[in-house]
Amino acid sequence: MAFDMSYCLSWRVAVEANNARAWRTVPAQCVPYVEDYMLGGQYCRDLDTVVDQIGVYINGITAASDGMDAWILDVDDTCLSNTLYYKDRHFGGDPFDPMAFKSWALRGISPAILAVLRLYGRLIEKGFKVFLITGRDEEVFYLSTEHNLHAQGFIGYERLIMRSAEYRGVAATVFKSAMRKQLVAEGFRIRGNVGDQWSDLLGDCTGDRFFKIPNPMYFVP
Amino acid sequence: MAFDMSYCLSWRVAVEANNARAWRTVPAQCVPYVEDYMLGGQYCRDLDTVVDQIGVYINGITAASDGMDAWILDVDDTCLSNTLYYKDRHFGGDPFDPMAFKSWALRGISPAILAVLRLYGRLIEKGFKVFLITGRDEEVFYLSTEHNLHAQGFIGYERLIMRSAEYRGVAATVFKSAMRKQLVAEGFRIRGNVGDQWSDLLGDCTGDRFFKIPNPMYFVP
Repeated sequence: MAFDMSYCLSWRVAVEANNARAWRTVPAQCVPYVEDYMLGGQYCRDLDTVVDQIGVYINGITAASDGMDAWILDVDDTCLSNTLYYKDRHFGGDPFDPMAFKSWALRGISPAILAVLRLYGRLIEKGFKVFLITGRDEEVFYLSTEHNLHAQGFIGYERLIMRSAEYRGVAATVFKSAMRKQLVAEGFRIRGNVGDQWSDLLGDCTGDRFFKIPNPMYFVP
Repeated sequence: MAFDMSYCLSWRVAVEANNARAWRTVPAQCVPYVEDYMLGGQYCRDLDTVVDQIGVYINGITAASDGMDAWILDVDDTCLSNTLYYKDRHFGGDPFDPMAFKSWALRGISPAILAVLRLYGRLIEKGFKVFLITGRDEEVFYLSTEHNLHAQGFIGYERLIMRSAEYRGVAATVFKSAMRKQLVAEGFRIRGNVGDQWSDLLGDCTGDRFFKIPNPMYFVP
């Protein structure tokens, strides 16, 4: 392989550990590396490993009969994969194109990330209330997102929480913190939180445990 | 190589992303992988990458003339390397042996992690106050740790803060949070925090930015 494997691996680990922040595109020299990572098997392996670790944690907890034990899952590149979209944009090597992404998301054809769908099924089965919280604009994307989730097998969640008008332009950490705070105010106990961005996981009311799903293609502040 | 490279890489990334927690030893099948990682060049590459990222952040900030801009660095496997010690213990494949580690630490011969020493020099040069906070027991290890740090070039730090009797047996996150809180109460502004364990970085008064230095050999809760 022509790319500097050692540097690109360092860079990817730095992204996963939240050391690299506010980056706009995958470094040009690492585009072939990220392509190989996403399609060559290691991404799937990493997803399986994280979901196995979540499974170990889930085995040790139970959902109380009051129905107030909650899990939070992010949507883009947590429940639903946008790899097919980024495949045509150098796997994150191109700058983010809001209009192109809008067209993609409105089509509602993102496939499920299978490891997360498996996790989702277990959470529902064990009696947890699952909240899907996404920074996608509610007005624009509600129908396509709901349709996409249902078509891919994400059925039976408690609520799909999307960005309402009052949170437009607000950082994901701020918006998602506010939504979690609201759930805690309603009496829910956040037992776990899963996302592909650190902005899904840090902030207020982060829950008992959080888990970072891999994503070397883009950064959401 | 005989080990399952793909799994061991997944496992290591999970450690760095704080997905794998409370593990006691490196999985037996990954001991050769961790050995290769630590000695084969990738660990050094990862350290350089993190320190470069810290450098980018440092370039954008300045230490105010009131002398209250602070950085926090952990000691074991952040400033000083214990790789030589773990080399004889299957790179973390053996369970932690407190007596053996005590003998090692009392010898005071841990080499500097050169990338972090380079970072340290820049922080001092730029006028930041550097606090070294370590979970090592103060009574047992103060002299050997101070001697070790000085001998390896860590000179001019503001304070070496070690675990006093009242924090014995307390989780690192709790102890380190309390120490940071104290610094903030004294008026210091924590501009950055660097450690090889997530327990160095999470908790209260975590500072403006924190950076995770790689360590696949052991986990400190």
